[in-house]
Order: sequence, then C-alpha cells, then structure tokens
Amino acid sequence: MRLITEVAAETGIREEHLELYGKYKAKLAPSLWEEIKGRPDGKLVLVTAMNPTPAGEGKTLTTIGLAQAMNKAGVKTVAALREPSLGPCLGMKGGATGSGKAQIVPADEINLHFTGDIHAVTSAHNLLSAMIDNHIFQGNELGLDPTRIVWKRVMDMNDRSLRNVVTGLGDGNGIVRESGFQITTASEIMAVLCLCANLADLRVRLGRMLIGYDREGHPVTAGELKAVDAMTALLKEAVKPNLVQTLEGTPVIVHGGPFANIAHGCSSVIGTRYALKLGEVVVTEAGFGADLGAEKFMDIKCRQAGLKPSAAVLVVTIKSLKYNGGVPKGELYAGNRAALLAGMSNMERHIQNLRKFGVPVVVALNHFEGDSQAEIQEVLAACRRLGVPVAISKAWAQGGAGGLELAEELKLLLEGSDTSAFAHLYEDELDIPSKIGKIVKEIYHGADVSFSPAAKRSLAMIEKLGLSHLQVCMAKTPYSFSDQPRLLGAPRGFTVQVRDITLSLGAGFAVVITGSIVTMPGLPAKPAAEGLRIDEEGRLLGLL
Amino acid sequence: MRLITEVAAETGIREEHLELYGKYKAKLAPSLWEEIKGRPDGKLVLVTAMNPTPAGEGKTLTTIGLAQAMNKAGVKTVAALREPSLGPCLGMKGGATGSGKAQIVPADEINLHFTGDIHAVTSAHNLLSAMIDNHIFQGNELGLDPTRIVWKRVMDMNDRSLRNVVTGLGDGNGIVRESGFQITTASEIMAVLCLCANLADLRVRLGRMLIGYDREGHPVTAGELKAVDAMTALLKEAVKPNLVQTLEGTPVIVHGGPFANIAHGCSSVIGTRYALKLGEVVVTEAGFGADLGAEKFMDIKCRQAGLKPSAAVLVVTIKSLKYNGGVPKGELYAGNRAALLAGMSNMERHIQNLRKFGVPVVVALNHFEGDSQAEIQEVLAACRRLGVPVAISKAWAQGGAGGLELAEELKLLLEGSDTSAFAHLYEDELDIPSKIGKIVKEIYHGADVSFSPAAKRSLAMIEKLGLSHLQVCMAKTPYSFSDQPRLLGAPRGFTVQVRDITLSLGAGFAVVITGSIVTMPGLPAKPAAEGLRIDEEGRLLGLL
Repeated sequence: MRLITEVAAETGIREEHLELYGKYKAKLAPSLWEEIKGRPDGKLVLVTAMNPTPAGEGKTLTTIGLAQAMNKAGVKTVAALREPSLGPCLGMKGGATGSGKAQIVPADEINLHFTGDIHAVTSAHNLLSAMIDNHIFQGNELGLDPTRIVWKRVMDMNDRSLRNVVTGLGDGNGIVRESGFQITTASEIMAVLCLCANLADLRVRLGRMLIGYDREGHPVTAGELKAVDAMTALLKEAVKPNLVQTLEGTPVIVHGGPFANIAHGCSSVIGTRYALKLGEVVVTEAGFGADLGAEKFMDIKCRQAGLKPSAAVLVVTIKSLKYNGGVPKGELYAGNRAALLAGMSNMERHIQNLRKFGVPVVVALNHFEGDSQAEIQEVLAACRRLGVPVAISKAWAQGGAGGLELAEELKLLLEGSDTSAFAHLYEDELDIPSKIGKIVKEIYHGADVSFSPAAKRSLAMIEKLGLSHLQVCMAKTPYSFSDQPRLLGAPRGFTVQVRDITLSLGAGFAVVITGSIVTMPGLPAKPAAEGLRIDEEGRLLGLL
Repeated sequence: MRLITEVAAETGIREEHLELYGKYKAKLAPSLWEEIKGRPDGKLVLVTAMNPTPAGEGKTLTTIGLAQAMNKAGVKTVAALREPSLGPCLGMKGGATGSGKAQIVPADEINLHFTGDIHAVTSAHNLLSAMIDNHIFQGNELGLDPTRIVWKRVMDMNDRSLRNVVTGLGDGNGIVRESGFQITTASEIMAVLCLCANLADLRVRLGRMLIGYDREGHPVTAGELKAVDAMTALLKEAVKPNLVQTLEGTPVIVHGGPFANIAHGCSSVIGTRYALKLGEVVVTEAGFGADLGAEKFMDIKCRQAGLKPSAAVLVVTIKSLKYNGGVPKGELYAGNRAALLAGMSNMERHIQNLRKFGVPVVVALNHFEGDSQAEIQEVLAACRRLGVPVAISKAWAQGGAGGLELAEELKLLLEGSDTSAFAHLYEDELDIPSKIGKIVKEIYHGADVSFSPAAKRSLAMIEKLGLSHLQVCMAKTPYSFSDQPRLLGAPRGFTVQVRDITLSLGAGFAVVITGSIVTMPGLPAKPAAEGLRIDEEGRLLGLL
C-alpha cells in the first residue's frame, strides 16, 4: 500500500486538502472543491449488471479492475464506490471491497468503521428518533399521532430481533408504542447524504424528511422538531468524500452506501462530482442489476445531480447466464449450452433497456476459472449479434492487466460517445402511477401494475399533498425483472403488485414497495463474524 | 490551534507513531509504546471533587487548567481525560471538554464523534447482542434461558423510550422477549476497554463477559458465542489512545469514558500508561465526587493497572459548599456564612477519606466570579485548620496562568510525596459483603448495609461461582455520601440499601446497585441539540 498522501499527489490533490484518517485513508476537504470546481468534468461510466444470482456477478470487482485497467491504458481514471455496511460484513456477505487482484485497500478498515460516515448517519438518525419520542413525552406540542410515526430507529447490524419492537415500556419511559429498527444503510439520511450537493443542501433535505402525521393527518417533518442543525452537525464530516486506493494504487472515492431497494443504491453525488474533476474518466457502480440500479442511477441520481453518463458497462458471467436459463445453483459449473442461450435473454433485455437512456453499452464478461471456451464464444457471438461491444474481464485473477481488453473497448466507446442523447425514462411532471407504469412496462417489460388498498390511499394522499412531482424509487426483488424472484430470464406478461408507497421527502422520491422488503437483515446460522480472527498485533484474517 | 504533529513533537512523539485523524487529532500507534515502555513513569495526580451539586464543580476544567499551569511552571505535564459521550452532549449536559480558558480542542469534534471509539464500542456491543438472539433463533445450542439474558443493547443517545423494550415481535423475527438499551458508556465493553492492558488482554476480557444463564442456571459468557475475535476486531482502533491539546497547546490523552456508577468512571489504563511515559507529571480525573470516583480510581483502576498515585487534588467551590450546607439551588449567589461553614463538612470528609489511601491531598478552590473575599478566606482558613494545602484556581478565566498557585502547591506536595504509602481500601481476598461494608463504613461513614432478597441471591451465587475475589463497583447516587441524594454535607448513621449485585466479569468487578440507577438517560424538555447551530462552512455554535 502506498501512503494516501502519495496517491493524492498523483491525482493532483495537494496535502493541504486532505484530512488524514491514519496513513491510508483521507477525507477530501471542501477547500479542494473550491480549487477544482472550475475544471471540466471527466466522462462518467456506470458499471451495472444483469440480474444478480447466487453465483455472484462481480460488479464491484469489475469496477475496480476497470479503473485499474484504464489507468494502465493511459487514461487517468478515478473510481467512485459505495461504502460497505458493517452489518452485512459481519453477517452473510463478508467484506465489500472487491476481491482477488481488484480490491480497494485497506480492506479491513474500509469494511469495519472506515472514516465513521455510517456511524454518523446512525447517530443523526437516532437523535431524531429520540427527539420524536421525547417531544411526545414532554407534552406533544405538535400533536403527533403516536400510532402514525413513520420514522424508526437504525443500527448498522444484522439483527432481526429489532425489526419489530415495542418501546417506552415501564414507568416514566415515555409512551408505549410499536416501532422498529432498520439497518443504517436503509435510513433516509443515508439517501439524503448521497444525493445532497453540499452541507447547506444536506441541511435543507434533512429538514424536509417526513417523520409522521399529526392527529389531523397532516404530515410532520424533521424540520418542525428543531433537530436539523444538530443532525447536520453530526454529519458535517460524513459529507466529505473519502479517498482510498486500489491494490494497484488507483485513486478511489468511497462515499455513502444507501440501500438499493427502498433507496437509490448509488454512491454519493458529492463524491462523484469530486471524481469527475479529478479524472478524465470516472467509473462508478449502482446497486443490484440494471433494472433497479441503473434505472435509479439514471432517473434519480443523474437527474438530481445534473449528471450525464457517457457509457454503461453491463457485467455478465457464464454462471449467471446459465442460472437465468434455469440451471439450479448447484449445477452451474457444468456446461449447459441450452440454458446459456436461454439465459442470454436476461442480458439482452438489460442492453436494450440501457440504450433507452441514450447511453452506449459495453458488455463485460467477468471471467471465472472453469468457464469453457465454447461458453465464452457463445456469449461473444450473442453480443456480436446484438451489435454490442464485449470484452472478457479477468480482473480477479490479473487485476488491471486482466481488464485491459475491457478498457480498450470502453475507450473506443467513449471516443464516439455523445452525452446529448442522454434522457431520463420519465419526466418529473408525470403523476406517480404513470411513472411507475412507465418503469414497469419499459424497463421490466411487465403487462400491468396493480395497487393494494394501502397503496391507493398513499397515492391519494400524495396527490392531495401536491407531491406528484417526486421521482419514484422502486423497491422490488433484484432477482427478476418482475416482482417475483423466481421469474428469471426475461419474463413478460406479469403484473407488478404495489403493496405500499412511502415518502422519502428529503431524498426527493416516493418509495414504491412491491413484495416484502426487508430493511433489517438477520444473521445466518454461521455469521461471517464467527470466522473472523485477530492476532495480537491487530491483524485480521477471514473478513473477506 | 497548533497542528497535532507539532504538539506531538514537543511531547517527544515522532510523527511515524501518529495515526492522524484530520490535522488536530491523532491516535498513538502501538509502535510508540515499544519505543517508550522502558522509560520511568511520571507522577500520577488524581483530580477529584466534593459531592457534585447543581452549581457544577469544574473538575474537568480544573484538570485541564492544572495541566496547563504545570507546564507554565516548568513541569512537563500531560493530562489524561475521558471521552465525552454524544448522548449527554446533545441532551442535558452540552459538551464535556472543559470551558473558559481551560478547554481541550477541537471541542466540537471531540464532543461529537471524535475518533470513533464510542461508536466502535456500540458496534462491538450490539454485535454480541445480535449474536445472542441469533443463537437462540438458530436452535439455541448453548441452551440459553431467554428470560435470563443480562446482555442488553446500547446506543450513544439519551433515549428513555429504549430503556425497556420488547424485541423479536412478528413472524420470523426471533423469540419475543423483554430487553432494553443502555447508553454506550454504560456498556461493560467500555469498562473493559478502559481497564485492559493491551489488545490481547482486551480479547481475554471480552471473552469473560457474562451474557446470561442457561436453563440449568449456569453462567454463559461471550467467549462461548464465537463473537470475541470479531468484537476485538471492531475495537482494534478504539484501543489506541487519542492525542489532542488544550487551548494552550498542552498535550492531552483523551481515551475511554465509562459510566461512573455501574462502572468505574476513569479514562483508560492504556492512555494513562502512555501519559506516564510522556510526562513528568500526569493529571487525570475520576467520575463524580471522591466517594465514588476516587475510591474506584484507587481500588479498581490503580489496583488492576498496578498504578500508584502521588497526589490527589480535591476540587471545591464556594457554591457547592453552601449547597452542601443546605442552601437551595436558586440562592447560591448570596452570601451565607453559616451554610458555608456547615458545608465544609463535606470537603473535610473527602480529605480525610483520600488520606486513607496514603495519598497526599491539595484542595483546589475553583473560583467563580461573585465569590466574595470573605467566603474565600473562610475556605482557606478551614483548610489551614485541617492541615491541608489549598490554592485558588482561576483556570476558567485565566487558563494556565490562573492555575499557577495550584500548580505551585502541587509541586511542593509532589516533592515530598512517596507512593510507598499508597494502599487500597480493601484486599481482594475479602468476601464481597465485607468489601461493601468497608466502603460504606470507612468512605461513606454509614452505620450499616442491608441487602435485598435479590442482592442476597446474587451474593449466594457469587460465592457458589467462586467469584468473591472480584472488586466491588458501587452504583450509588453521587450527590450524597449515603445512598439518599438529599442527605448532603457529611451524614452519618444511615444504612445503605443494596438492591442488587450484578457481574461485570470482563471488567473484573461486581456492581453493587443501591437505589435506582438509570443507565439510559432521557432528553430534557429542551435538549441541548435544539440549541446547536451550524453555518454553511460547517462551523458549530452552541455546543457548550
């Protein structure tokens, strides 16, 4: 690992603009923005993927490997990634800093507490929670309806026991009411942190957040509770982007990590903007597959931030294609040409969808040991038929060198790329059901949308409150284009069932809930935490 | 503010041993310990106080001012302080970084997230909590009795609604059981972090912590849950002491901050040890008044760490003396000679108590504007009668210069001081009731101790488990020598009622609970958070 001061220097960042966190992590000071904000932007490249499968697609890995490869290929490239959340690291998932020769480092510190951003979100969120219950306890001047508080508490831990709780039990401990905890990355504050333009905008958005309703049914916002300055204060360091490096010394801005279902699943706007001033090319990723992640990246993040992506990289793997072609999890290593061809429908639809945003696409076939030449050739041939450039990425095994083929294809694509063709899928002016309908029909390729009674009540309220201009944030299973996890490939003719619609007014979107969305994961029978080992010098083993 | 690298350099710390957190905070790397561990220790000075009153005694302020003054007087002095907890900062108390011209800086950052130590304790604690409920959910191999889980959850927030909760409600969310949250500083992990010698000792102590009992009534420890390495990993940065400075550039190690009732209320052993290698004199403080804080400092912290204090400073104020003499809170500004003389009994008893540990005492009269000359002369005369040195401290108004008189008295005391007279109040070999009896009779000057049925059951279990060697950690009201908050001055003849005794096996003490001890504070009608203001550049106003 090189000192972060050296990595920064090579990226054109003077040391005075760094706020060091140890020797290998730094926050970028607002003074840097003052220095670079007049520069032209680099080109923004989104790395997205086909629908996720149990085989793992390697989106983060490919993003890191591609950034390394682009630098090797002579293009000054900065990656912009999400921060790992502690809960999943210690639960099911292990670390989230890439793998093989495409990793960001120091991986253990980034995976555990990093620079404290997620802890700051937890604190700000729970301060508001405490102030809500305290407000009721101290006389409830705002007339809050205790049965209609929508603001829960958060913890950055996988803890299913906290999903539904009753609080305030016992004498002198406030009112007894039902509530619950979400994991911190599901906090609206995380979404707000990732969408805000700066500290002042953060403050405004925090004030706008919905906390519940009063006894007359009127919405009550965080701004009415006098907690907004304190919350902003708690987030004043978290709002600064973090600089780290890859194993090959490529600069990476790792900042923010909102949920990809009930939120938009992209790293921060602020971090992306800094990266665009520092690199000729910025490689960033979005959550889940392109049906959720890329759509939200285009329609929410890019729209709110005024960003125009120059290209999209769609990550596919042989195993994921076969899985989408109907092969069960345990049999993905065996060759199965028919399933591979069938699963290609999933890739094809994502390519077709991405082009609807006016963004050129390159397919990255993330290579796994065991992929046969015949299978690889099938994928390359399919891409040729679709008229989409494709490259094999061996970033896991070879790092940047393994991503050079992809980098060359991307360079070609970027040379001819013109962001003037970029278009959002829907206009803000459409009403909420029309926006949902457009996504369901044009991205998911479903036949229809149906709304539950609760969703209809929410729609009526949204209209009454004059909030139809909000963007929509789809909370849907990531495993299928539809809202049914087992409909793989490229299903058609399904009806998406909308269970409820909630409001993230600070983030600026209505969350459209289909199916049952878990915002507080549980621990598995053998949590990743059990496999972690630490020696007397504090070195960790087993985090990844 | 000077750069922390400069402060470190003047303290004899080379930059390679610093892990910077921005420009004004740093963690001290274990490599520094390797370099300095062979040096002789400086002299350890405890700053403690008479029983706390609503007037505020200024113990932290006096500690900081004294460290500044000692350096002014030519003695290389390092202060070792506790970390502020976020909950109280945003709740009742405001910041905890001193005030006036005796402050540690950057105050806002130290008061909010600092270097993330308390967040790390929160994460480690709640990981264990989640793993306990998950263990039961996944089949309960250890046979844990869900009704006898003693390990709660924590949050660094004042949130009374979380004191008593029911968790696990709803389908698939684990078992329904009663539980609750404590504030993070009340976590046993905070006590463990502050008493451990190093990372390896931390790991051993974490494994020893009691989490509950199995269905046969046998104790179950954290070590049995395979969470200890992950918890240690989460704490691997938190275990490193933090270096900051005072307004006058005096080096201060701010590290750890356990509760002073259910825990021992002192900053970390590791931080104190580093400080003793770096300064000729180390000034540190303990929680509450000397009846709780100093007794635990001597009998728990110094015993476990093998430290021998060279002197104690007892902070008194005219207002606190009058309050202890019976003057109500609103009338403390008015002169009242009779009350002042009566309240002196409180000071006198603390002096007498401190001498029982074989430690010489100096009284610091923390000067407030409005203290009359006549009142000041009364205090000085009383100290002369008691044969105890005394100095007026004007650290709030004048910083180090205002503490010079106190520094000179302390220097005199230290010249003649001999730590060979230092003795603990009780020996480890005594049984728990005898240890409690000794503290109640010799420190509190009570007549007797009575044990509730629950406390008697706990005592029987402690004896059965062979844990009588544990130290005792008294959880008692800080406002009185007795367990009744309104018995001011120097009460006698009372019986201390022990309600329960709990086990902090990682910390190595039995917690003796008298009265009702709140381990999760609530927010007041006007939380400090409401008064906080932040401008667009992120500058804070109103935190103190």
